[in-house]
Amino acid sequence: MILTVTLNTALDITYRVPVLRPHTAHRVTEMTERPGGKGLNVARVLAALGHEVTVTGFAGGATGRVVRERLPMSIGDALLPVSGATRRTVAVVDTRTGDTTQLNEPGPLITPAEWSAFQEAYEDLVADADAVALCGSLPPGVPVGAYAGLVRKARAAGVPVLLDTSGEPLRRGVAARPDLVKPNADELAELTGSHEPLRATQDARRRGAQAVVASLGPEGLIAATAEGRWRATPPTRIHGNPTGAGDSAAAGLLSALVEGLPWPDRLARAVALSAATVLAPTAGDFDRPAYEDLLDHITVTTEATAA
Amino acid sequence: MILTVTLNTALDITYRVPVLRPHTAHRVTEMTERPGGKGLNVARVLAALGHEVTVTGFAGGATGRVVRERLPMSIGDALLPVSGATRRTVAVVDTRTGDTTQLNEPGPLITPAEWSAFQEAYEDLVADADAVALCGSLPPGVPVGAYAGLVRKARAAGVPVLLDTSGEPLRRGVAARPDLVKPNADELAELTGSHEPLRATQDARRRGAQAVVASLGPEGLIAATAEGRWRATPPTRIHGNPTGAGDSAAAGLLSALVEGLPWPDRLARAVALSAATVLAPTAGDFDRPAYEDLLDHITVTTEATAA
Repeated sequence: MILTVTLNTALDITYRVPVLRPHTAHRVTEMTERPGGKGLNVARVLAALGHEVTVTGFAGGATGRVVRERLPMSIGDALLPVSGATRRTVAVVDTRTGDTTQLNEPGPLITPAEWSAFQEAYEDLVADADAVALCGSLPPGVPVGAYAGLVRKARAAGVPVLLDTSGEPLRRGVAARPDLVKPNADELAELTGSHEPLRATQDARRRGAQAVVASLGPEGLIAATAEGRWRATPPTRIHGNPTGAGDSAAAGLLSALVEGLPWPDRLARAVALSAATVLAPTAGDFDRPAYEDLLDHITVTTEATAA
Repeated sequence: MILTVTLNTALDITYRVPVLRPHTAHRVTEMTERPGGKGLNVARVLAALGHEVTVTGFAGGATGRVVRERLPMSIGDALLPVSGATRRTVAVVDTRTGDTTQLNEPGPLITPAEWSAFQEAYEDLVADADAVALCGSLPPGVPVGAYAGLVRKARAAGVPVLLDTSGEPLRRGVAARPDLVKPNADELAELTGSHEPLRATQDARRRGAQAVVASLGPEGLIAATAEGRWRATPPTRIHGNPTGAGDSAAAGLLSALVEGLPWPDRLARAVALSAATVLAPTAGDFDRPAYEDLLDHITVTTEATAA
């Protein structure tokens, strides 16, 4: 079983309007809602790849109930109830252009008792896991060093752990020596101070991450690991909606790790899934035929070590 | 007991962001949510004025549960459960300027069986009511002549009925001879084709409404009734948030009608409540000291009959 952790789950709402005009009223022409938060998105892709997956984190209030009710049957639900209400995110899509305006609630205040209860539950879940993914932002009340503690617990249990977050929680988490971090270019630059991805991935390893896979958007991924350095690139520039592409890449890396595949195959899977997510009509889903087709057309090359 | 009908109840969500910039991501700095829809707003003001009030209409889904849970204890809940989910409205307030961008979901699809069940429940509720207010838009599935039928049922039971809606539901409802309609200037112009309020209120009476009270925004109200014609004006131009001012005016008219007050007193109360709502810091609430002070300072004058 793969465990994904989403401390700040969300009810992701998408509104379609012809054009968003500030300071006017809009009739929403189409509304969809579904469970969100990075770890839940990663879990959805892992389940679609045929992996047994369990989600944990927090869910509360009416929005939390909807998140739990709407979880696919193929995903195990180990979310902990909390007194606060799970946040909503609202994506307003202009139907004329496809441009999106995003409104993100901060999330519920987690009490010290809730955070303690989570850490206990997490230890039990990790004991049964083949791998763990720690994903996304921290809700108010959870200490900034939370991921560092969760990384250490996974490592103590001998379970590989992927960390996908940003800012100070990433900085502290990296120092706890996770098996893998998967920053995008901005997150990597914020962590290392370097805008040169090759140098920055190397630097992130020196800060503690055992492997660093940085997403370069449409240009694919670069990886710095103990076994070598690679660059993985899709065959053509992919156009579409990049929402969820990073979560699909994380699911690709984690599934291939659990299956014992070598690094080049892990990276090819991550890039193919990521590109197939950009191509999918629904944000966050992946286009399966495109994924299967792309998988044979990802270029993975060895990179020389940076100076 | 005063009965207010809200067929398209809502969970009204307010987000505060520094400035809304289309096609970017925003962290919401403050979020509030409360039950909404015009009839619920009218009921809240009636309850604050000390009247016994019951709300009916539809509520469904997780959002409908929140609407029911958050109804003040002072309001009787006779909302009918439906299979669809109660709509949300999202008001995004720019904290720098106070400007508001509104996103309104259309509402759940009401099935023919749900609409039949409502009409039966409504007849029972009307039998116990001193007055009825029919408020707001119709959700999908409810026939456009719905309010006309509900007006006729109230009249058959000898219960005074106020209709506060717009467009075709207003046009059809007016023809069923409600005791009172309370359009704003735009709604009145749409109904009658006239942008001259004095003429238009007269015309709305000819179309069937027994009394017409038109809101002229900061300039107060004008009324055309069987007993005479009046204009009611606040002492000064009131600055603030006009959200809910029309619902407060409806509550003022209805409460004063039930109390048997003469028309000038009804209009003074409606204008004072409406102005005190514009002055309140929270949209839709009214400032009670301001209301009590304003009540003695509303000018009500008799209007000559239009040519």
